[in-house]
Amino acid sequence: MSFRRISILGLGLIGGSVAMAIKSRISDCDVTGYDVDTGALQSALASAAVDRIAPSLVSACDGTQCIILCVPIGPVGELLAAIAPHLKPGVCVTDVCSTKQTIVEAAQRLLPAGAHFVGSHPMAGGERQGFSAARADLFDGAICITTPVPSSDPATVQKVEAFWRQLGMEIRQMPAEQHDHLVAQISHLPHVLASALIQSASDEALAICGPGFRDVTRIAAAAAALWRDILLDNAAEVRGSIARFRTELDRLEALLQAGRAEDLRNWLADAALRRKALGKSGG
Amino acid sequence: MSFRRISILGLGLIGGSVAMAIKSRISDCDVTGYDVDTGALQSALASAAVDRIAPSLVSACDGTQCIILCVPIGPVGELLAAIAPHLKPGVCVTDVCSTKQTIVEAAQRLLPAGAHFVGSHPMAGGERQGFSAARADLFDGAICITTPVPSSDPATVQKVEAFWRQLGMEIRQMPAEQHDHLVAQISHLPHVLASALIQSASDEALAICGPGFRDVTRIAAAAAALWRDILLDNAAEVRGSIARFRTELDRLEALLQAGRAEDLRNWLADAALRRKALGKSGG
Repeated sequence: MSFRRISILGLGLIGGSVAMAIKSRISDCDVTGYDVDTGALQSALASAAVDRIAPSLVSACDGTQCIILCVPIGPVGELLAAIAPHLKPGVCVTDVCSTKQTIVEAAQRLLPAGAHFVGSHPMAGGERQGFSAARADLFDGAICITTPVPSSDPATVQKVEAFWRQLGMEIRQMPAEQHDHLVAQISHLPHVLASALIQSASDEALAICGPGFRDVTRIAAAAAALWRDILLDNAAEVRGSIARFRTELDRLEALLQAGRAEDLRNWLADAALRRKALGKSGG
Repeated sequence: MSFRRISILGLGLIGGSVAMAIKSRISDCDVTGYDVDTGALQSALASAAVDRIAPSLVSACDGTQCIILCVPIGPVGELLAAIAPHLKPGVCVTDVCSTKQTIVEAAQRLLPAGAHFVGSHPMAGGERQGFSAARADLFDGAICITTPVPSSDPATVQKVEAFWRQLGMEIRQMPAEQHDHLVAQISHLPHVLASALIQSASDEALAICGPGFRDVTRIAAAAAALWRDILLDNAAEVRGSIARFRTELDRLEALLQAGRAEDLRNWLADAALRRKALGKSGG
C-alpha cells in the first residue's frame, strides 16, 4: 500500500535525488515536482526524474497522497504555512530537514487536523548543492531517521517509513529531541570542526596539504546559508557537543604537555578502535 | 645521473610503496630491502618490489648509492646510529619521517662526514599500515618536502629531489622548522581533531553516523604508536596549532551563542571558499 502519487517540494540535491530514486526503484509512482527555481524544474522534467512540474504550490498539493518537503530548515516553516490551507484530508506530509524539533513543532502548530505529518531525516547528502548534484543512488544503504510524536497517525508513520525503505534506506525511529542530540555529535559538530580547522590553517600550510586534510575538511565546502540555519536551529545541542569535544581536546593536550607517552598511545588507540568499528569511508 | 642502487630500510606502507614506485617508474634501478619483519621482506621479494633482501643492516648499507630510512620518527634515531659506522663515503641518506627537526639534527650529530643526508617528507600515506597496504601509485601527484641545511651537499639535495620527482611527486624545499610548523597545521592537528571527535561522540551517536562523519574521522584509524611519536616529537607546534584552532572555535561559538546569523554565514562561507580552493578529496 505504498504511495502512488507523490509531490516533492524543492528539487535540490535531496529533493532531486528523492525523485530519481523513486523513478529508479518504484514502479507506478507518479511524481510531481515543485521548485521556485525554474531551471531545476526544467532539468528534473527533462531527465524524467519527475512526471510533471506543478505551476504553483497549490497545484503541487492537489490530488497527491504524499508531500515531501525538500527544502532546508531555514525556509521550511514558511513552506509549511503556505501549503497548510491547501492540504486535503488524509494527505501525508514529511520532510528531509537536518534538525527535527523545530519542524515537528511547526507541523503540529500549522497543519490542519486531517493532514498527517511525520518528520524524516535521510542521513545522506554531500557538499555539492542543487539538482545538478542529485543522483538516484544517494540514499543506498543510508540511515533514515523518523521522528513521530505520540499523536502521529500510525498508518502514515508506517507508509512513510516503508517509502524510505523502498529508496534503499534503513529506518531508525526516535523522538525529535534525541535526533537533534545525536546528529549534533556526528553531523553538526564535525561541520563546525572542519570549518574551524580550515580557518585556523595558514595559506602557506594549506598550499602543502595532502589527501588526508582534504578528506577531513571536505564537508566544510557545503553551502554556508544552509549550515548557518542548521547550527542556529540546533544551537543548544551543538554547543553541548562542542563542550564535550573540548573536554577530549583538553585531555589530549594535557597528555601532550606532560609527555605521557603511554596514556597518549592508549587514547589514540581507543580512538582508532572506535573509528575502525564504523567501517570504511563512503562518498 | 639518478641512483642505480638504492637500499630501503623498512618495508611498511611507505617503504613498500617507494620500492613499488621505483619498479614501476624507474628502469635500471636495483633495490635492496631490509626490515626486521621477515614477512614483509618475503612479500616484497615475492612481489618483485625489491631485487634482493639484505640479511643485515650492514649488508643493506654495502655497495648502495642511496639509503632511504622508511621507519617512523620513533625508531629512526636508533636506526641512524646503527647504520652510521657502516656508511661508505659519498653515500646519500634520506628519510620519510613526518617531522623533520629531530631527524635532521640527529643526522648531523650521528652520521660520518662522508655520508650526505637530506631530510624528506613525502606527503602521502593512509590509515592502513604495513607492506600489504603499499602501492606503486601512492605518491602520484603528492608533494614531497625536502629540508636541506646550509651544510647539505648540493649534489645530494639535487639527486634526492630528482629521485622523488621520478616517483611522481612535486618538491617543496624548506627549513625543517618551517616544515614542522606547517605540517602541525595540516596533518598533526587534523589527526588530533579527528581522534577527539571520535572520542567525544557517544556510541549511540556513532551508530547512526553517515559518510561525512566517516570521511572526517578516517585518519583517526591510523596506528596509535606512530602518531604518539609524531605528536610528542612535534608537541610544541601541535600545541600551537591547537591554540589557533581554539581561537576559531571560540569565534564560532560566540557567534552561535549571540545568534549572529550574518556573521556566522560569513564565517562558514569563508571556510567553504578556502576549502573549495583546495580541490577535490583524494584517497
